[in-house]
Amino acid sequence: MRLVKIWHNENARWGLLEDDKVKLLAGTPYEGIVLSGEVVPFEETKLEAPCDATKVVAIGKNYYDHAVELGGQAPAQPIIFMKPTTSVNRHLGEIEYPEISDRVDYEGELAFVIKKTARKVKAADAKDYILGYTCLNDVTARDLQQLDGQWIRAKGFDTFCPLGPVLTDEVEPEKGLRIQTFLNGELKQESTTDKLMWPVAELLEFITACMTLYPGDVVTTGTPAGIGPMQKGDVVEVVIEGIGKLINRIV
Amino acid sequence: MRLVKIWHNENARWGLLEDDKVKLLAGTPYEGIVLSGEVVPFEETKLEAPCDATKVVAIGKNYYDHAVELGGQAPAQPIIFMKPTTSVNRHLGEIEYPEISDRVDYEGELAFVIKKTARKVKAADAKDYILGYTCLNDVTARDLQQLDGQWIRAKGFDTFCPLGPVLTDEVEPEKGLRIQTFLNGELKQESTTDKLMWPVAELLEFITACMTLYPGDVVTTGTPAGIGPMQKGDVVEVVIEGIGKLINRIV
Repeated sequence: MRLVKIWHNENARWGLLEDDKVKLLAGTPYEGIVLSGEVVPFEETKLEAPCDATKVVAIGKNYYDHAVELGGQAPAQPIIFMKPTTSVNRHLGEIEYPEISDRVDYEGELAFVIKKTARKVKAADAKDYILGYTCLNDVTARDLQQLDGQWIRAKGFDTFCPLGPVLTDEVEPEKGLRIQTFLNGELKQESTTDKLMWPVAELLEFITACMTLYPGDVVTTGTPAGIGPMQKGDVVEVVIEGIGKLINRIV
Repeated sequence: MRLVKIWHNENARWGLLEDDKVKLLAGTPYEGIVLSGEVVPFEETKLEAPCDATKVVAIGKNYYDHAVELGGQAPAQPIIFMKPTTSVNRHLGEIEYPEISDRVDYEGELAFVIKKTARKVKAADAKDYILGYTCLNDVTARDLQQLDGQWIRAKGFDTFCPLGPVLTDEVEPEKGLRIQTFLNGELKQESTTDKLMWPVAELLEFITACMTLYPGDVVTTGTPAGIGPMQKGDVVEVVIEGIGKLINRIV
């Protein structure tokens, strides 16, 4: 199943992507897929971020090579932070370079969206709580991250959380999906999702031991090595095998 | 104006508190006060947190004496973090002591709620964006805060963000409201709100230079010295002059 959220008659609607067509859903996908009967050509659609996030929970330093690249060691347990929902952005949406930063980085990541209310979930049950997987760019004002110590501001600017283009349950991240980030067509980050120190199921257990997640919430799993700066006018792409290509321009 | 949010016929409704009566609003208070005509005695009401938060933004180390107490220096600029909306709790709501922490602290704070969408607000205009002020307890699992480095998990457990009981625009924090925290009736924290290193207006400018705030969002301004642990069964009170007393029990 490949889900998209698209703009249709000025409403953001969920749909099922099949070949080159989007079959619109009557409602949301959280309690089962009910088609409305409306079908639109995919090529005419403007995509919205495939989530209904009341929160975006993110994980720091979850690839060993990136933890080392930042000058530190691998953490002893997952590091949770959040990106405000006002930072959520769509495939082909513009990332706004803040006036108060001089260093804005891409961070290509695998993300997942919650299917049903998740509280104190066990890793063994995690699959029941996941609607699907998508690509996410955890855009980061690196200078402010170092200045503040806490990461919320550096990672929290409006437009700093593009995700998409589709949400799919047809991939198995624990088997190792290739994840790549390209800047203006040049490969900058490359890894596979089996290298996550804490895989998806363990992250869900760890996070929900603390906070309840709701249907439509987003969890992003961390970035591999190769982070680097972007400039205005640049085009950044996060590509994950079996999911698709998330494209954004910096303005 | 003193606003409350109360449970009435199984709905959470906004109301105007006048003497011992609550005059219910027809809708929300963000675009002006429209009374529904319904009036209920205040003593019969069960209060809800007086907000409609899509996010709770918090500030670290904003009283000099608390920054020093934590073993550090005063920061060079405000430190932004967030508490998930799932942590929001009400006056008289129970704070749940997490199994995975051995040290859970109170942090009494002055908070404010946003009146209208706030993006790149100037400090001079801040008052136009503030619906009112309330008491907030920034409950913190101190051991996890030190373990993680990032503060989201330590401060993000469900029930860890009680606020209330009322929201008022009849106080002027910059003139110095007494703020106190009591544990089982014993005074633990005491300061005045004119000691905030970054006052309310400057915080709003700083935060909205990064992220957009929506009507009903919560900003909490930081805690003074005197932090300390709570145990199951304890009763904690945050009292701010001219606002009221926020009471919660640890379970």
